[in-house]
Amino acid sequence: MTRAAVLAGGVGAARFLDGLVRVLPPRDVTAIVNVGDDMEWAGLHISPDIDTVIYTLADMVNPETGWGLRGETRRTLDRLSDLGGPDWFMIGDLDLATHLFRSHWLEQGNPLSTITRDLARRAGLALTILPATDDRLRTLVNTDAGEFSFQDYFVRRRAADTVRSLRFDGVETAQPLPKAILALLEADVIVIAPSNPFLSIEPILSVRTMRETVIKARAPVVAISPIIGGQAVKGPAADIMASLGHDVSALGVARLYAEIADTFVLDQADAALAGEIEAETGLHVDVLPTLMVDAAAKTALARGVLEAAGHAV
Amino acid sequence: MTRAAVLAGGVGAARFLDGLVRVLPPRDVTAIVNVGDDMEWAGLHISPDIDTVIYTLADMVNPETGWGLRGETRRTLDRLSDLGGPDWFMIGDLDLATHLFRSHWLEQGNPLSTITRDLARRAGLALTILPATDDRLRTLVNTDAGEFSFQDYFVRRRAADTVRSLRFDGVETAQPLPKAILALLEADVIVIAPSNPFLSIEPILSVRTMRETVIKARAPVVAISPIIGGQAVKGPAADIMASLGHDVSALGVARLYAEIADTFVLDQADAALAGEIEAETGLHVDVLPTLMVDAAAKTALARGVLEAAGHAV
Repeated sequence: MTRAAVLAGGVGAARFLDGLVRVLPPRDVTAIVNVGDDMEWAGLHISPDIDTVIYTLADMVNPETGWGLRGETRRTLDRLSDLGGPDWFMIGDLDLATHLFRSHWLEQGNPLSTITRDLARRAGLALTILPATDDRLRTLVNTDAGEFSFQDYFVRRRAADTVRSLRFDGVETAQPLPKAILALLEADVIVIAPSNPFLSIEPILSVRTMRETVIKARAPVVAISPIIGGQAVKGPAADIMASLGHDVSALGVARLYAEIADTFVLDQADAALAGEIEAETGLHVDVLPTLMVDAAAKTALARGVLEAAGHAV
Repeated sequence: MTRAAVLAGGVGAARFLDGLVRVLPPRDVTAIVNVGDDMEWAGLHISPDIDTVIYTLADMVNPETGWGLRGETRRTLDRLSDLGGPDWFMIGDLDLATHLFRSHWLEQGNPLSTITRDLARRAGLALTILPATDDRLRTLVNTDAGEFSFQDYFVRRRAADTVRSLRFDGVETAQPLPKAILALLEADVIVIAPSNPFLSIEPILSVRTMRETVIKARAPVVAISPIIGGQAVKGPAADIMASLGHDVSALGVARLYAEIADTFVLDQADAALAGEIEAETGLHVDVLPTLMVDAAAKTALARGVLEAAGHAV
């Protein structure tokens, strides 16, 4: 039996997990998912990363965007736009039901983790999906133009502002889920998914005891670079790394994970960096095709990552 | 110039107002609308009576039901139902946009009255629509099976419980809108629309200074019976009147308004009660066709009510 715990952001993480549950029995996989990008929108609680993981694994995701639902319509959003309401955040009619469901049960006093479990079960998923915390945690982006919520910065303002720093509002008091700590301690392999290191992974690791648990857990920690050939596959990772003064490269990412990871997986396109990364960071480096263009690529990456951690499957 | 102030509930009031703005310039009409039926649903703020008034006057209402929007779909609600979410309150995709709009602006700190004004303007309406209060006011229905919010009692539990009493949560501190007080004081005629006396009109009159203002205002007060031939045209008025020990008849309604109204308008079907009502309550009684089956009937009723108040138009 190989038990895997995966620190996960949005699209990249969801695709990696989709491969992993084709290689391992889903019940042996636990995803610990970023909630720093969660937002309140018109009274509703939206958890973009959790939804992307669920939609992707349930094969309901919109393949064009990597997020949202396939066959989506926008009756409500178009009408909201006509009314002069907030229409900058794309929410389809079917997607909206997820947010209403979540908001309803939160309002009734249920924790986000329970609601996430119910949504995952309803989608027919057997892996465990845990929010990084049930408490309020919000990534705030400090830019030249002021401090914004992540979605404000990324969607509404189209990531046009220069980022100076990030802040995780609520992180001082947010509690990790005991189940997440246990999953990390019992894991045979811990994977840091190819997600944004600052916006997706750091908010998870910043929840108290989480970073220490990952470091002290007996399992090898494998981090997958979200940067390929100096570019982010998706999202604002490259911009943010550059803004914050980091090298926008697999090397730059490897430096961020030097203390926490054992093995670093980078794409074949960056194979030339392997020696330099090993020498500078002391990480063991594995070169794999990391672009998850289809199910075969996802499965191959998952298999490669498990092998890199010494768990051939 | 004839200025009218109308105390309004849902469907019956909306239809009356729709007639009134065909007879008077809309800018001379102020509707003071019940918010006791407002509800929070999955994090959204819903104002059923305000929406019914706006949808009806904007000719967007679903003519079959008298509430909701014409040409409505239920993509979101059907999906929410599949997820096992709360699907007992019918909310169409277009209607949902109204609730998102309202919830968003409330969340941003705007009062309900401002949002209502914006929604009315956006719908092209020139009359003034005011909530009975900007503060939280909720009608709670005490029944044999426990205390429920109005929508819980009426929609979810299908008005099947015997009502013992009503309570207006928040009424001790809820403030009337100065504009509403002014509209009542400046009105040439005050109309109590054919709405549920207990569930629609009483929550408005219970807001502090509201009842006193209606009584002391110089304008004649005309109340229209929502009961025709011992039955409510729509909604639970008859059941609730019976449960609370009142006569389910125009006479029963007239007794409720004896202190506050000058003139009582009842339907031709109840013409035989006119003498008894005048004798017992001291109200002046006018007999009119009150069933607003079409635009002509609405206009005729509005005209008749204004005439009853001494304002031929």
